Formats: sequence, C-alpha cells, structure tokens
Amino acid sequence: MLTIGVDVGGTKVAAGLVDEAGTILARTRQRTPSASPVDVEDVIASCVADLRERTPAGAEVEAVGVGAAGFISADRSTVLVAPNLSWRNEPLRQAVSSRVGLPVVVENDANAAAWGEHRFGAGREEKHLVVVTVGTGIGGGIVLDGVLYRGRYGVGAEFGHMRVSESGRRCGCGQHGCWEQYCSGRALLREAREIADVQRAYGKRLLELGGGRPEGIEAPEVTEAAREGDPAALDCFEEVGGWLGQGLAALAAILDPGTFVIGGGVADAGELLLGPARRVFAERLTGTAARPHAQIRLAALGNDAGLVGAADLARHR
Amino acid sequence: MLTIGVDVGGTKVAAGLVDEAGTILARTRQRTPSASPVDVEDVIASCVADLRERTPAGAEVEAVGVGAAGFISADRSTVLVAPNLSWRNEPLRQAVSSRVGLPVVVENDANAAAWGEHRFGAGREEKHLVVVTVGTGIGGGIVLDGVLYRGRYGVGAEFGHMRVSESGRRCGCGQHGCWEQYCSGRALLREAREIADVQRAYGKRLLELGGGRPEGIEAPEVTEAAREGDPAALDCFEEVGGWLGQGLAALAAILDPGTFVIGGGVADAGELLLGPARRVFAERLTGTAARPHAQIRLAALGNDAGLVGAADLARHR
Amino acid sequence: MLTIGVDVGGTKVAAGLVDEAGTILARTRQRTPSASPVDVEDVIASCVADLRERTPAGAEVEAVGVGAAGFISADRSTVLVAPNLSWRNEPLRQAVSSRVGLPVVVENDANAAAWGEHRFGAGREEKHLVVVTVGTGIGGGIVLDGVLYRGRYGVGAEFGHMRVSESGRRCGCGQHGCWEQYCSGRALLREAREIADVQRAYGKRLLELGGGRPEGIEAPEVTEAAREGDPAALDCFEEVGGWLGQGLAALAAILDPGTFVIGGGVADAGELLLGPARRVFAERLTGTAARPHAQIRLAALGNDAGLVGAADLARHR
Amino acid sequence: MLTIGVDVGGTKVAAGLVDEAGTILARTRQRTPSASPVDVEDVIASCVADLRERTPAGAEVEAVGVGAAGFISADRSTVLVAPNLSWRNEPLRQAVSSRVGLPVVVENDANAAAWGEHRFGAGREEKHLVVVTVGTGIGGGIVLDGVLYRGRYGVGAEFGHMRVSESGRRCGCGQHGCWEQYCSGRALLREAREIADVQRAYGKRLLELGGGRPEGIEAPEVTEAAREGDPAALDCFEEVGGWLGQGLAALAAILDPGTFVIGGGVADAGELLLGPARRVFAERLTGTAARPHAQIRLAALGNDAGLVGAADLARHR
Repeated sequence: MLTIGVDVGGTKVAAGLVDEAGTILARTRQRTPSASPVDVEDVIASCVADLRERTPAGAEVEAVGVGAAGFISADRSTVLVAPNLSWRNEPLRQAVSSRVGLPVVVENDANAAAWGEHRFGAGREEKHLVVVTVGTGIGGGIVLDGVLYRGRYGVGAEFGHMRVSESGRRCGCGQHGCWEQYCSGRALLREAREIADVQRAYGKRLLELGGGRPEGIEAPEVTEAAREGDPAALDCFEEVGGWLGQGLAALAAILDPGTFVIGGGVADAGELLLGPARRVFAERLTGTAARPHAQIRLAALGNDAGLVGAADLARHR
Repeated sequence: MLTIGVDVGGTKVAAGLVDEAGTILARTRQRTPSASPVDVEDVIASCVADLRERTPAGAEVEAVGVGAAGFISADRSTVLVAPNLSWRNEPLRQAVSSRVGLPVVVENDANAAAWGEHRFGAGREEKHLVVVTVGTGIGGGIVLDGVLYRGRYGVGAEFGHMRVSESGRRCGCGQHGCWEQYCSGRALLREAREIADVQRAYGKRLLELGGGRPEGIEAPEVTEAAREGDPAALDCFEEVGGWLGQGLAALAAILDPGTFVIGGGVADAGELLLGPARRVFAERLTGTAARPHAQIRLAALGNDAGLVGAADLARHR
Repeated sequence: MLTIGVDVGGTKVAAGLVDEAGTILARTRQRTPSASPVDVEDVIASCVADLRERTPAGAEVEAVGVGAAGFISADRSTVLVAPNLSWRNEPLRQAVSSRVGLPVVVENDANAAAWGEHRFGAGREEKHLVVVTVGTGIGGGIVLDGVLYRGRYGVGAEFGHMRVSESGRRCGCGQHGCWEQYCSGRALLREAREIADVQRAYGKRLLELGGGRPEGIEAPEVTEAAREGDPAALDCFEEVGGWLGQGLAALAAILDPGTFVIGGGVADAGELLLGPARRVFAERLTGTAARPHAQIRLAALGNDAGLVGAADLARHR
Repeated sequence: MLTIGVDVGGTKVAAGLVDEAGTILARTRQRTPSASPVDVEDVIASCVADLRERTPAGAEVEAVGVGAAGFISADRSTVLVAPNLSWRNEPLRQAVSSRVGLPVVVENDANAAAWGEHRFGAGREEKHLVVVTVGTGIGGGIVLDGVLYRGRYGVGAEFGHMRVSESGRRCGCGQHGCWEQYCSGRALLREAREIADVQRAYGKRLLELGGGRPEGIEAPEVTEAAREGDPAALDCFEEVGGWLGQGLAALAAILDPGTFVIGGGVADAGELLLGPARRVFAERLTGTAARPHAQIRLAALGNDAGLVGAADLARHR
C-alpha cells in the first residue's frame, strides 16, 4: 500500500507518492495559489489526483498526510494558526478528505520532517530523537520512545522560541531574545551584513561577494567565503553554530535525547555549522563530565523529509 | 497490595508504606548516615524492615521504590552521580533488593515527586504534566501521555540548567546563566540580602527581620515581609516569580503541557510566587494569543510527593 | 578682523568667512577630491583663496581654522588618524599654512562644532558644556570653565565609544557594545529595518515608506512615520532616545556639565529624540533626587557649527 | 605657612598639620561622634585646636581644608548630601570657620585625595590625571591642565555610577548596572563568596580562609589566597580587575588623561588588580592601535591622600 505526502509551503505545494520504505515513487508540485484556504485545498486535491493517476498498476493509495507550517490541533484535523497563510482554525483534514475521498492526517511540517528523519533518515536507529531545523527561523520535532510527541494542544517543539538572552533581539513572534534570532539563516545574514557594514576591512571578502552592498550578501555567499577560509565568514558560523550548541545543551537538559539531527538550509554548510555547535554543546551541557552525550548529526533527507514524514504518518495514522 | 516508597535526602531518609490510593499507612525516618553507599543501603533496608513489621494483617509489601537526587541510569538500577552523596555508578537497586528480598525501582527524586503529583496530587487529571520544584535549586519531572518521561539516558528534566541569561551568574554545575540561579530559594535570598546590603532604606524591614545582618535573612523572613506588604520583599518575589514564568514559557514552547505543577520550598509562598509567574508566563509565551495556555498550579503533596511517587512507581514497575 | 573656517568632510570641503560675532559673510564648497593629503590640502587652499577674494574691502583674513574627523594631535598641528581619509600622522597645519600664508589651527571636527555651539549657539551662556552629535555615529566636544577640553593627547570626547552593554553589538572601532551602536542614525535604522523585517504587521507603515523593502527605510522615513504617530516608528525613537538619555546620565556622573547640547542628523527629529532622552536621563542619573540636573537642548547652528567653531578657534588660537 | 587637612569619614575624623611639601608634621584622630552636624563640627574644631597647639614655634596655620564624602556645592561651602552622615544642605564651611577662626575649604573626599596624589603622589608629573579609588565603592577625581575639575554643580567625577551593564546589578544609588557594582571591594567579595557558596570544590581554599562560611571571607582572605596562586581567588581579581580596565577605557575615551592613578583598599592587592586592568584596558580602548595610551599606576599616598589633598586645597584656596 502506498500513501501520499504533501508539504504545503508558503510558495509551493510539493507532493509525493511514497512506499513503505520511504521511497518517493512519483512527485508533483504546484505554486501555492494564494492564502485562501479553498484555493490551497483545491491545489492539494489536484496534486493528489495527479499522483493517483501515476500510481503503479496493482498498487493503491491508502491515505494522505499533509504537512503545513503553523499550530495544528492535537487531533491533527485543524490548522489553528498558519502564519504564512494567515489562516485561523481551518478544518483542513475534513476539507481535503472530502475532496479526495481518502483518510487524511494533518501535521505540523517540522513535526512531519522530524518523523521522516526518524523513520528513514539520520535518526533511523534512535528512539529518543530531537530534530532541529535551522532555516529562516528554527523549527523542530520530538520523537520519544519511538513516538512523535506533539504536546497537550499539538503545539510543542517550538524550539525557536526558547528565550536565550535577557535583553534580547526582537522576534517575529512578538517576544524578545528567542533562540531563532541568534541561530538561523536570518541570524547568519545579520552577522555577516553587520560585519560588512561596520567593519569594512574585516568584512571585505563578504562585501565583495555581496556585490559591494551589505544587503547583497545572502547565505550562499557566507558559506562560500567560509569555505575559502575567510575569517569574518568563519566568525559568522562560529557565532551561529555556537548558539546552536548552546540551545541544544538546554534541550538536552530537558529532553535527554540520544541523538540530535540538524536540518534546514543553514545545515547545508555542514561542519562549518556543526563543528562549533558540537564544541559549545559539550562545554555547556550541564553535568557534561558525568553523563553520556547525545550525538549531533546532519539530516539526511533534505527537503524531502517533510513529505516523506507526512506520508508515513498517514500510513500509521 | 502495598508498596514502600523511600526518599533518600542529603540529611535524612524518609520512608512510607503506601496503598494503591497513595495513602501513607505508616512512616519512618532515619538520619542519612554518611556518604558511604553501604551505610545508606543499610539504613534503607532498616526503614523497609521497620515498615514491613507495621504492615496491617493480611496485607503484603510487594515492592520498594527509592527516590534519590542525582542522575539515575535509564534502566532505573544505578545511581550514575549523586552530588549530595558523592556517589558514582552505585548499583543501588541490586544492593537494596538483595538486602530486602523484594523488587526495587530506583528513580530520580524529582521524577518520583512529579509522578506522585501526577497520580495523587495537583496533576491528577492531567496526562501532559510538567512538575517544577523550586527549592534551593530547580528540579522537575515530565509526564507525557500519562507516562513518566526519563530521557534516553535517564537524565532528562534537569530544568534548572536551561541557560536563561547570556552573561550569567555562576552555577554549581560549572556553567553560567542556569535558570536555577535566577529562580530558586538561593536566588530569592540573594536578591533579599542584596537589597538589605546595598539599599538600606528600601531593605529596612528585611534587615530588621534578619536581625540586622543581610546574611541573617532566610526564606521565611522574605515571605513574612512580603505578606506584610513590604515593597522590597514583594520585589524579591516579583523577580523570582517573573523568572519562573519566563522559564515556564520556554518549557511550554518545547513541551506544550496541559498543566504545570509548582512545588518545592519556595512554592510555600503560594500566590506571592505564582502571581508574578502567571503574569510573565502569559506575556512571554510564544504565540500567546493564538494558543491554549497551560494551567499553573501549586503542588498538593508537599514533601510526601517523592515518597508517594516512588512507591507508586514500584507498584507499576 | 575675519577668520576662515574649513570643515573637511568625507564627501565635501565646506568653508566660510566668519566675523567676530560668528556670522558667515561668505561661503564656498568643493568636493573632497580623494584621500590623498596633497589633493585635499590643495582644495583647502583653493577654498581659502576663493574666500579671501570675496573679503569685504577694508577687512582682512587673520587666520584659518580647519576641522577634520579623526584624532588630532594635542598641539593642533597633525592629523594622527583620519578614518574617512585613511590618513596617518599628516602635518596638516604646516601643509595648509605654507600654501595660504596664514596661521592655521587644526581641530577635531566635533570639537570645532562643540566650540561653535558654545560661542554662538545653544550653549552660549554655559561655561560647563557637553555637546553630543548624534549622526551616523556619535561625536562630541567638552567645554569646561569656558575652555575647550581636548585631553592629554588631543583625543578626548570620543563619547560614542563608551561601552554601554556587556554583550554588545559590534562597532566599527573594533570593540563591542559602544554607545554609538545603540544611539545613532545607524541604530535608528537598524531598529526600524528590524521591525519592518521581523514584525511585518507592526512595521507596516515603515515598510510602506521604505518602498516595501526594509533596506529602503532611511532616517527621514522613520521621522515621517513617527510624526504621523506610527507606534513602531515612535518605538524606534524611544529606543534610541532612551539610550541617549542613559549615555548622558553617565557623562553627567563624570563631567557634571550645566548643559548638554544635542546636534547631528538624528537631532533633526527634535523632541521625538529629546523627549525620551530627557525622561531616561532624569531616571538614570545617579543621585537624581539630590542634585541639580543639566539641561538638555537642541543644537542651534546645524551643519555650520563646525565651520563657525573652527573659524573662532583660529581667532582665539 | 602650614595648613590643616581634615578627612571626615563614616567612622573616624582624621586630621593632619601639613606643610607646603605635603609632609604631615602632626596627626590627630577622633571617632565620628554621630550623624549630627553640630557634633561633627565640634569634633573637627577640636581636631584643629589640637593640631594648632602642636604647631612648631614660629609657624602658623593659615587655613583648613575639610574632605567629606558626598555632593559638595560648587563654591565648596556646603555639603549638599552626605550619604554616610544623612546630611542635607549643611553649611559646613561657615560652621567650621566660625568655630576655628580660620578660612575653610570643603571638598569632596575623593576629589581631595585625587588632588593629593596629583600634588605629592603618583600623579605628580601629570597635568591630565584621573584618580580612581576602588574601595567599598568607586570614587575619584579629575585633574585637567593642572586644575582640579569639579563640574558645574560640584558633583562631577562620580565614576562609580557610570552604567556598564544593561541588565545590571542593583546599586545603592537606586540605579542598576553601575560600575562600582562590578569593580569594588564589594564586587570582589560577592564574587569570592559566590564561588565559595556555589562551587565548593573550586572555592575550597577561599572557604577555608573564611572559616568554612562564605560570609566569613573578606578582602584580605581573597588577596591572601590569590598570592598563594589559588585559581578561584585569581579568578576574582581577573573579574574585578577586568571591569576596572573596561571602565578606564570608557574614561579614556571621554577624558583622554595622560595617567590613571588607582587607589583605595582593593588597590592594596597591587598587580593582582592592575595586571588584568592593564590588559583589558589595552584591549578595550577605542582606537587602541592608533593613539598613545594613558599609564595606569598605583596610588602612592594611601589613606593620607585625602587629608594631604584637603590641606593643599586650603593653601591654594
């Protein structure tokens, strides 16, 4: 039996036909039409229809898993809030299910991705897994004793909004000092642009790659400069990677997982990010000398994690 | 069937004979003899023997649960580290079991207390519960979906060592900026003594209750002054309660529990502590306007929570 | 007798023929040619020649005062370092004097501007005056007992580089946490762009005025929005003005002036900046209840302060 | 001609008969009687009478200089506020003068001490001198161009109340984050006691010297342990000395003195304090590579600085 996983992003809807081993047999994608729920639901249904037509002879689609950014209700039926889409209390499961005539499960996208890594990716052998996705902000998911942990109201694992600094930077969530303001793609760029703007000599290479303007610097430029050995760019990864390690130490104090899997766009920099993270994690972990340490690994599934995870959650719904 | 719960503290060993409803039928206590494991194990065995003699006719003791401060192994057999007792890798389950001839479960004392509150106390109706014990430091326990969560290596729920401040205060764990340096009995006293020492006029009443010396001020004095309405003492609870609320907001972002239960000596001050905590929690919770809020309640079992919880964990071992 | 004041900026050289009352009788300006000292000296000489030709019949030019950004030697002859021009140890007084055949005085531009405000502007009646210029960064000057105070090596009054934050923002001077990273045009823009970028709803008006891009927001946009009553823009001035007040409180603890005069581009916002500054100054001043408070006033001479001050310093050389 | 210097402290009044070379020819001291101005004035008069009787034949006492902690009016006649004595607007000059029949000058005690070091101590050769006294708190004085600088209202040079930390420690002045909360005898003890209390193993030697109780540790114990090479005690001086260097860097940015002289009880530790201070000063000074650095020296006159300085100010009144 096959299932379909759908990943609803702010700009595109990606879907895949997935087998029990997590292999994607067919893919489709469409642009996210607008913020209107009806339009998005139509696009999801159209993706599902497309993939069902491409289902191999003799196989059948059993269920659909939909991953979306936002707070999802604990019963996995309703999008409570979706910041990108400006949705509130949208009964997405019912809306999609009635369109496609299949059982549907809705899940937070970071939870779905965490589940994907747990089932088929870098956290495959680990029953106590925390996945941290470092992109524009920080998302994540928690697997405890082999079960996806979602919280009493379905809104747990919002790691990006642990407060890590007293007198902290403004966050989009309305608070100050949230972890994702110190450890994220946005934080990396802030650091790099700040250096290029304020310390011209030190930030020369970054500025050059940015076409002479601090705002011209994007994440790939920082990674490129760091790979060349540019001290300012390495400094940016030290900073952001260090904050990653510090936040993981706090999560380990609370959750004591066996493994952390780190995904998201910033993790494309690999050891540039994970090196400082591992070092600071080991320094800052409470009781560091007296306890086993969680491993810190790169995610394996890239952008497919959410889609594959959603499909698998639909299978084991 | 009855079980025995034992709470091994730094100064005394308290034990009780407990029934299925969490009622303590008989109690005993002895001084913690020394740091020597053998001596402590003898005292535990002696407490168990004492309680077995007092077991009502027709009833029988089925198992023993032992709660102790420190890191306990994931299989609940071994004390990995016990800071108060200076133990390392002590096979406490085996040692006690061979002495008393009954099945034994060893648990971290804060975990045991959390379980006690979950089963018979202020968290009785709540499947997703976080218990935070604010004493000299901060301890705690996590109940997820009705199960005590212990972590991959048994050392989770060390809430007191989340880092909450960048340029932070020195912590006994060797780190800086740990939550328990801002929210604990120690933090309350530091604040009160600091005021009494540095701002004499403002801290007049505190100083008076402390017998004229800042170091003479202890927690009961701060609570007394706050109950009288002394602004400096209220300020201390605002400070410590505010940090409590802020830390709970971080825990809610990660764990999304339905209820927080707050215990420990500082919680004896009741609403003096919980008032500011609730206010800051509601302000600082990420997505505060768009999500259900966890309740924040006072613990119900007081010092018995650990003993009752350990006994119940032994029953359901 | 008349004197000529010259203000050497990073992009233009402005000069004026000034009488004893501080009135500018004639003006000239040229582009700053390049960083080469010889070229700049030629341009200064050409400005001086131009103004001498325009000197009213019967009057004569007695001396030339040159104001330039950077560290100037205590004997007012040499530019030790000029960050904009990349000069090091340039004997500017001798070079200009030999070209124009008149006595020359070289002064730090912010010192010259402070002197201008003391002699003819908002600090006219005040013998103990501190001028703080809030532009891209912070400059300033100190008048004590009616005398311009320059320091042992001529490099005092670098107010912008008092450290005000422990875990502070990167500064162009190579340090972290300098005052001008919190209180300056750059800080105002950082705040405004950050809001527009991170808190879209709150920063809507700012973003609109910036043409839809955070980087499109410049200081006039923030002032415009604040004048309309936009809460986010007012927030930016509260922040920057608050840091101004806090820094003035530190300066008052050290220097105890009778008046602060606030100039520079950011001060064009007038009470939007000075309102929060006065409030925080009064709150944060040590011994605030027990001492007379310095007045805080807007500068009166605008961009002419440096030129007029340099001319007057040349007169009283 | 001779003058008399009087140093009015919280616990004792010390006075000396001083010649033009700053030599103390005779001394006397009495207990500070109480906070009552009349009583204190009587004691001052009695000290003066005592010293006049001991004046060598042929010499005469010309004037009296009185140094006292607190805000002194700009005309050096009135104690505006004296925190130790709880005085407000006390016309001390008139009161003493009418008792002793000699001209009297009243000066802030730290200003008097700074003047003493400038005239006869470690700042003798320096026309641009800043004296920083690190005792229980921080006091200081400024000599500019060979003149004692007192400020518009006589209340300058309150260095201890520069704010150096955003989220700062409570200060007796009613503010938070004042320098003297990080760099003072009080700060040294706070650090040492904190280590002894929180990190028992690390703080073992300190605790031992404190008689087993953190509150038993006083400054001499910290110095003793540091001299023995105890890492925790050295850590305390690194911390406090580092904050000293950082504050001096801020003062240098503003005042650009040629020399800093460091006095006060904590400076008795000599290079234990000055070593870290010099290192951090050189690191944190703005434009550090491009400017001459002020020297940092130990004070030479010890507790006599105030008395000798007051006497000299009376001579040159």
